[in-house]
Amino acid sequence: MREPDQSDGLDHLFTETVQETMDSSVYGAWRGIRDPEAVPLSFGFPYPDSFPNGELVSAAKSLFDAEGDCALQYGGGEYADALPEVIVDRARDRGIDCTTEKIHLTNGATNAIDTVCQTFLDQGDTVFVESPTFMGALRLLRNYGVDIEGVDMDESGLDVEALADDLAAREAAGEPLPKLLYTIPNFHNPTGVTLSAERRERLLELAVRYDFLVLEDDPYGQLRYDGAEPPPIKALDETGRAIRVNTFSKTIAPGVRTGWIIAAPSFVKQFDRINAGGEPSFTRGLIARYAEDGRLDRAVGELSAGYRERRDRMLESLDERMPPGTTWSEPDGGFFVWVEFPEGVDAEGMLHDAIDEGVAYLPGSFFYHEEGGTRNARLSFSHASPAEIDEGIAALAAAVRAEAPTIEAGD
Amino acid sequence: MREPDQSDGLDHLFTETVQETMDSSVYGAWRGIRDPEAVPLSFGFPYPDSFPNGELVSAAKSLFDAEGDCALQYGGGEYADALPEVIVDRARDRGIDCTTEKIHLTNGATNAIDTVCQTFLDQGDTVFVESPTFMGALRLLRNYGVDIEGVDMDESGLDVEALADDLAAREAAGEPLPKLLYTIPNFHNPTGVTLSAERRERLLELAVRYDFLVLEDDPYGQLRYDGAEPPPIKALDETGRAIRVNTFSKTIAPGVRTGWIIAAPSFVKQFDRINAGGEPSFTRGLIARYAEDGRLDRAVGELSAGYRERRDRMLESLDERMPPGTTWSEPDGGFFVWVEFPEGVDAEGMLHDAIDEGVAYLPGSFFYHEEGGTRNARLSFSHASPAEIDEGIAALAAAVRAEAPTIEAGD
Repeated sequence: MREPDQSDGLDHLFTETVQETMDSSVYGAWRGIRDPEAVPLSFGFPYPDSFPNGELVSAAKSLFDAEGDCALQYGGGEYADALPEVIVDRARDRGIDCTTEKIHLTNGATNAIDTVCQTFLDQGDTVFVESPTFMGALRLLRNYGVDIEGVDMDESGLDVEALADDLAAREAAGEPLPKLLYTIPNFHNPTGVTLSAERRERLLELAVRYDFLVLEDDPYGQLRYDGAEPPPIKALDETGRAIRVNTFSKTIAPGVRTGWIIAAPSFVKQFDRINAGGEPSFTRGLIARYAEDGRLDRAVGELSAGYRERRDRMLESLDERMPPGTTWSEPDGGFFVWVEFPEGVDAEGMLHDAIDEGVAYLPGSFFYHEEGGTRNARLSFSHASPAEIDEGIAALAAAVRAEAPTIEAGD
Repeated sequence: MREPDQSDGLDHLFTETVQETMDSSVYGAWRGIRDPEAVPLSFGFPYPDSFPNGELVSAAKSLFDAEGDCALQYGGGEYADALPEVIVDRARDRGIDCTTEKIHLTNGATNAIDTVCQTFLDQGDTVFVESPTFMGALRLLRNYGVDIEGVDMDESGLDVEALADDLAAREAAGEPLPKLLYTIPNFHNPTGVTLSAERRERLLELAVRYDFLVLEDDPYGQLRYDGAEPPPIKALDETGRAIRVNTFSKTIAPGVRTGWIIAAPSFVKQFDRINAGGEPSFTRGLIARYAEDGRLDRAVGELSAGYRERRDRMLESLDERMPPGTTWSEPDGGFFVWVEFPEGVDAEGMLHDAIDEGVAYLPGSFFYHEEGGTRNARLSFSHASPAEIDEGIAALAAAVRAEAPTIEAGD
């Protein structure tokens, strides 16, 4: 053994921010929430039958037939080059005035959010997030040494009037105003709610008034099962303050890990300049080839049908099986239902017993920067089959009854 | 048009470092150096016949046959999980005491270097680099707002005694000492030279004495055509100060964009924690499946034969064709020959004419943080065929003669 197991005494070489955050206990807390016997309602994983395995093999063959001399080269060939155009066309279909100069490709949405953070966030800046919000975004933000502040939500998403009041109060008191507000406007993770069109307009007004950026994260927007789509925030943006991130993880598969940012060209220029995520030209060519035959549009339709069935089954099962005092959101799309358990139930404390009963979920507290969500759970209907979802909800109901047995009296 | 083409007036929202570096003119200067008519001696691109197109299609099929329910899922299946073990085995073959706890996977070597920068470099830190060095590393370092200092090289690589003198002088004068030293010890980019074993030991002594990290970037180490391999710096490291980055870009193909860091477990823990590069589980599973049949070892042998032939042809052509007063390095491996043109030749100024003559190269000045390399060029023998290489060197010789016609007198 030439090398010690630890680089003892070298912690002082880490950046200031790493030294301040390195003992953060939150990191990875959710990674252990897996049990092969439990129905997986925990993670926002696509269901296994949704993966286009054979079609990607065919796309790889066609790609190499067409440009075998450069598909694996730095930069790739014409297919990899064409991927931004695939994205532009789809963004325009959703009302966004998009060109390739407004596109920066990334290795998935998390890498996209990180690129935005690296470009705009100095240590000590203030960032507003929905409360609750995507735990992965919280994890990234914490790496930048910023002050994170939560904004309350209701059934129409981020409460923009509460936000307006908070901003006015901060300004009056000389307190820090946000540099950036992070939002998941469609089928929000974890609550499943959608930000209304009026609130989107109002949010952009506030961004101009108080000089902040709006980071719109929309991985689920195309997976809508009911109702009409409000315009993307980026489609309403007239000032360049909205930055939109998206991914093929939910419409092709997570394993291809390809996402993008849509932003003002002057922002994209800096994303391109500082970019060091690595450019997987093979995957980019593969996706462009896969999309060429209209396969991406067909996939969105097929996936929406598969997820709609799962959502419907979850909502039916919740209705049928959960004890009184339990409430939940009814999302029009996406992957998630947000449940509130009866008084006295601690969702994090109950998790171990729930897994023993046969279901895994994520406790609500994981989605809060500070305290919150102790009675909540995020249930993902994306991964399990409809029959498994019903079993999982039955197990969850049993766990809740065991945790708060007095409920039975009123049942 | 709802959105302006520029986000006018929003530059103040960029980070301090972005604002300081955003007008850097160096970025992308090399991207225009392409001409379909010119022999490409410019970029370190693998030759097109080297790409394992068919084998990757077969590996994709086998991967999906084995684990079609999870190869495209977040995290992937057993093959993606096994990739660190593939890397551990190969690192041990090169004398490194490696375990999976010492591996952090990245999206290529550039992403690996960036991860190290993000983990260790605060604005204002001092970083030492070889002078000249890889222009991509200079680009990344500049993003972090660090002070970059060059260390001279000779035919045995980084001049460690000059480094020792500089460090002692800095310490005596109370000047900043480096946080990190970046080196490409094998078949250095751009000079092609290899750091001697004795200097590797001495460099590690200096790292301990002056409290800095050694970042060993070794993309070419396995592509050796002559001579014996000195031990990797990481194999000699007893203190955890050496951090090694590597990639499959040169041994499989750039398009798969998969690299890794080997470092002390306490460092890897932080790389994992702050990581936001995106984890392309499909590509990782694909590489592990491809490697399973010994394909990776066979590929290194085949590639080495292909590159050796190209190197030999380039050195022969240089010998035969270049005017007197031109000198060049004779690398034992890797991709690059470093040329010094006769007095009076400006390599950057000559480039346009050289492309007209039929050859593209990278001017030496691109590889210097400050002034330097005006009479140098990096020639890559990795991309063109042997016959094209000979044509390219003939064109280069013609360009040099045209640039400095007085040479002819002594020819």
